Amino acid sequence: MVAPGPNGPRFTDVGRLVVRCPDRPGIVHALSGVMTEFGANITDSQQHSSDPSGGIFTLRLEFVLAGLAGRRAELEKRLTVLAGEWRMVWRLTEASHRPTLAVFVSRTDHVLQELIYRVRAGDLRADIACVVSNHRDLEPVAQAAGIPFHHVPVTPETKGEAEARALELVGEVDLVVLARYMQIVSADFCNRFPERLINIHHSFLPAFVGANPYQAAHDRGVKLIGATAHYVTPELDAGPIIEQEVARVDHRATVEDMRRVGRYVERQVLAQAVTWHVEDRVIVEGPRTIVFA
Amino acid sequence: MVAPGPNGPRFTDVGRLVVRCPDRPGIVHALSGVMTEFGANITDSQQHSSDPSGGIFTLRLEFVLAGLAGRRAELEKRLTVLAGEWRMVWRLTEASHRPTLAVFVSRTDHVLQELIYRVRAGDLRADIACVVSNHRDLEPVAQAAGIPFHHVPVTPETKGEAEARALELVGEVDLVVLARYMQIVSADFCNRFPERLINIHHSFLPAFVGANPYQAAHDRGVKLIGATAHYVTPELDAGPIIEQEVARVDHRATVEDMRRVGRYVERQVLAQAVTWHVEDRVIVEGPRTIVFA
Amino acid sequence: MVAPGPNGPRFTDVGRLVVRCPDRPGIVHALSGVMTEFGANITDSQQHSSDPSGGIFTLRLEFVLAGLAGRRAELEKRLTVLAGEWRMVWRLTEASHRPTLAVFVSRTDHVLQELIYRVRAGDLRADIACVVSNHRDLEPVAQAAGIPFHHVPVTPETKGEAEARALELVGEVDLVVLARYMQIVSADFCNRFPERLINIHHSFLPAFVGANPYQAAHDRGVKLIGATAHYVTPELDAGPIIEQEVARVDHRATVEDMRRVGRYVERQVLAQAVTWHVEDRVIVEGPRTIVFA
Amino acid sequence: MVAPGPNGPRFTDVGRLVVRCPDRPGIVHALSGVMTEFGANITDSQQHSSDPSGGIFTLRLEFVLAGLAGRRAELEKRLTVLAGEWRMVWRLTEASHRPTLAVFVSRTDHVLQELIYRVRAGDLRADIACVVSNHRDLEPVAQAAGIPFHHVPVTPETKGEAEARALELVGEVDLVVLARYMQIVSADFCNRFPERLINIHHSFLPAFVGANPYQAAHDRGVKLIGATAHYVTPELDAGPIIEQEVARVDHRATVEDMRRVGRYVERQVLAQAVTWHVEDRVIVEGPRTIVFA
Repeated sequence: MVAPGPNGPRFTDVGRLVVRCPDRPGIVHALSGVMTEFGANITDSQQHSSDPSGGIFTLRLEFVLAGLAGRRAELEKRLTVLAGEWRMVWRLTEASHRPTLAVFVSRTDHVLQELIYRVRAGDLRADIACVVSNHRDLEPVAQAAGIPFHHVPVTPETKGEAEARALELVGEVDLVVLARYMQIVSADFCNRFPERLINIHHSFLPAFVGANPYQAAHDRGVKLIGATAHYVTPELDAGPIIEQEVARVDHRATVEDMRRVGRYVERQVLAQAVTWHVEDRVIVEGPRTIVFA
Repeated sequence: MVAPGPNGPRFTDVGRLVVRCPDRPGIVHALSGVMTEFGANITDSQQHSSDPSGGIFTLRLEFVLAGLAGRRAELEKRLTVLAGEWRMVWRLTEASHRPTLAVFVSRTDHVLQELIYRVRAGDLRADIACVVSNHRDLEPVAQAAGIPFHHVPVTPETKGEAEARALELVGEVDLVVLARYMQIVSADFCNRFPERLINIHHSFLPAFVGANPYQAAHDRGVKLIGATAHYVTPELDAGPIIEQEVARVDHRATVEDMRRVGRYVERQVLAQAVTWHVEDRVIVEGPRTIVFA
Repeated sequence: MVAPGPNGPRFTDVGRLVVRCPDRPGIVHALSGVMTEFGANITDSQQHSSDPSGGIFTLRLEFVLAGLAGRRAELEKRLTVLAGEWRMVWRLTEASHRPTLAVFVSRTDHVLQELIYRVRAGDLRADIACVVSNHRDLEPVAQAAGIPFHHVPVTPETKGEAEARALELVGEVDLVVLARYMQIVSADFCNRFPERLINIHHSFLPAFVGANPYQAAHDRGVKLIGATAHYVTPELDAGPIIEQEVARVDHRATVEDMRRVGRYVERQVLAQAVTWHVEDRVIVEGPRTIVFA
Repeated sequence: MVAPGPNGPRFTDVGRLVVRCPDRPGIVHALSGVMTEFGANITDSQQHSSDPSGGIFTLRLEFVLAGLAGRRAELEKRLTVLAGEWRMVWRLTEASHRPTLAVFVSRTDHVLQELIYRVRAGDLRADIACVVSNHRDLEPVAQAAGIPFHHVPVTPETKGEAEARALELVGEVDLVVLARYMQIVSADFCNRFPERLINIHHSFLPAFVGANPYQAAHDRGVKLIGATAHYVTPELDAGPIIEQEVARVDHRATVEDMRRVGRYVERQVLAQAVTWHVEDRVIVEGPRTIVFA
């Protein structure tokens, strides 16, 4: 499915509102009323109810509001009042804002290259603030793209310090992407970026959790290999899934062939997940995600 | 993508409203206001604008309204008023209504069998009122399913009369499905069922319009074969497309192999298109369709 | 991929030879020499080596040999000599032979219906000798297709007896298909049909082994659901995989929606696996299968 | 499907033999006899017959032959004799040979970037000898990759000269790739590189031949967009198809969205076609290709 294009003619004055609240009749009317009050034109609207009786209602609006930046405070004030009445959690973003990403890698470049390509092509509206790696292999890739590169070696003994150092170097970013980082990050790290830390796992989760999934897939004799992009939580490979895809393999595929084919699936899946996140299309709902693609 | 299930626990009191009007701010608010007035709970809402400035706005709502059948007249009256204000075209259906289908076939049974299966399985909430064919081959299939079968032979000389006879036998139905009928229907026939006549064409349109598309696909050496479900208009194979799908073939595939593989694509594509139509998810917009899947 | 068509103009005189032996140079030459000797024309040949140095070589030939039935004994004698020289395991089948299937079901008919459809359509060249079920729900389906139906109730207490009774009723068949049978069969049952017992599991194995995989898939929030056809071995859901496929779902999908969508994946995957098996295209190699599709 | 890996441990001593001749019994035996004579181990073998009676037989072998480079002349001599006996056309390549490519582009970089990425990753075993363009936009991309860039402006008046100049600059290469070149090349150009000139067309051919296929696809309201890689012949967009793929779009997709989504399909399809060509897996058979993937 094709989401409305990130390359549209304009981003100025385009707002995105994501709202969650207990589902009860009238909520759409109340929200659209505020939009009408402000003279905003709703250009996209998607909603989901976990259960029409007593469930959680989620709504994502895209709208055009002339002079959004200047009127944002006023709109937020109005939404705060509404939120009180309906017990809403909400967030408002401007499409003109370009989020910043920190990308953690190890030695393989395919996912990083894809992110760089999509940023340049304008398909991923974000800026890669820095690349962090425990190895120096991808320093030239970052440099060629004009992205700061931080080398933070990790050993079993220095894991804690290394993470602290990495976090310090990363500083404030909107999203951290583990683009085949190959290190398990700590619970502290996860908690530092709640719902803002995305990993690509090179299997169709929950199959083949943990290390060396292509070897495990080969041992099991699967006919499809997969990749999974998910938010990272302290439990390994168990966070809410954003996107998954598979590719067909046959009996001729060696483990090495699976790795090779898998790279193309991984880069696609992670880039898609990051793009959806950056466009504020992903909402975590317990162990699952809602994706308004 | 999975649409909210047709096998849900209940259909009583579930309404579907499809609205089209010139796009201008406030339309969602106005419509949701009516829903709120009536105490309806909106359980699904999808919208599309052909162009936020000066385009056509389309909205499909699913809602639960206690006592819908009894209050329908009142709701329609209210919507008629609103329609005047906003220059709306609208239609309201009740999910509990089971549309009737007339299915036209020739000699191959795969698409008919699939429709019968899906009706029985509850995945296609409709009733097949009759099967019409220019051959007697599928009479046993219809009979085994308890569906009236009409044999209406067609020759080049009797084409007009045959069509008239078929239309008479079909009578009033909600939808006519050409399930590999292999006859070109007249403009009169098309006009009798505007946006209510669906055909399956056994190619990826607009490639291979007309007769014998698998032979043409083989001659061209394509690597994917396809099928297309579309509304029928007087221009051959040119009506608005509802759904398309493809399957991979390789150099080993003979024309006969393509036909065989294609049958599974055709049945899937047509059944999907009919299901969407029956659930009021398809809106024709000029040469295209909007599908709120 | 499309395998050469089962609906080809002729099956008489068409043979299939599957050979396995330690890989060493000259094996193809030796085998093709025998074929040449007999005046057979090789129409399809596929081969695989688990490892060119010291691995197992597998070859599948399709050939046309005039008067195959009459010359089969002679050919087998010649192959036996060759097998001694090359330490070959081999099997020879005639395409004109229609294998017999016993299909075990429980209450859902989608997979059984698909098998019946494909047999009738000529896409699956086999005969369903009987349907066995622990419930009477699908008796009418079997009857309508003219297939003997055996009702063998199973309770935890009578499981052993029930299996014995089922095996007795089934008698000699070429393949047993568990078409959503929903019962775990015993090791004895498995051993009675080595590499001739196929199950459809309603998940993308090895994810969601065991009961209620759609519920588990929903709980985990996956974005693709799958189905897996595999040979059954005593270890639950761990036998060699023949075919897998997936379908996309989104956050709107309930467990019931997943079941509904999954039915179409299951029927496709099982029917494909059974077809390949019946055409002698599947070779078990340890925990994996070679599929010469 | 995964072809045996181009990243295998070794390429030295690996040969590929593609043979075509009238189909008659004994051909495999004769060829495998030569291989056995030379002590070659056949590691992959794929064959196809356009028609077992009186058709053309095509065989592709991969084999390991110790000291291949040194024994090549001897092997070729032996094959020449055999070719005379069986009226064979054949070609022998060494896997260790890296073919050279000339890549023609215009202003969009996605296909070129993909080719560069795959060469670097080792997934496409070839060398890009030069990039030719009628615009300077992609000069930095070529330079960053260390590839000579030739700017050859084209105007309607200078088309002939420009082509001549481009051909002179390109010189001897194994394959010319039109990677969204956006210019129609002359019949002379096509004939200079028979079956060695690959184009990516941004539609699912034969739908939307010619210029601006995404606009045409949008106008027609298709639900899938596609891309086609084909050998170029003098007739526009009519050469033998090597690979095709599609991506799903819905009613929300603008022409611009289709272009954006299409880029990812195009790069995948062209890179796959070039890889197969370079591994000598593609054989032209009249208007079609045989692809031993």
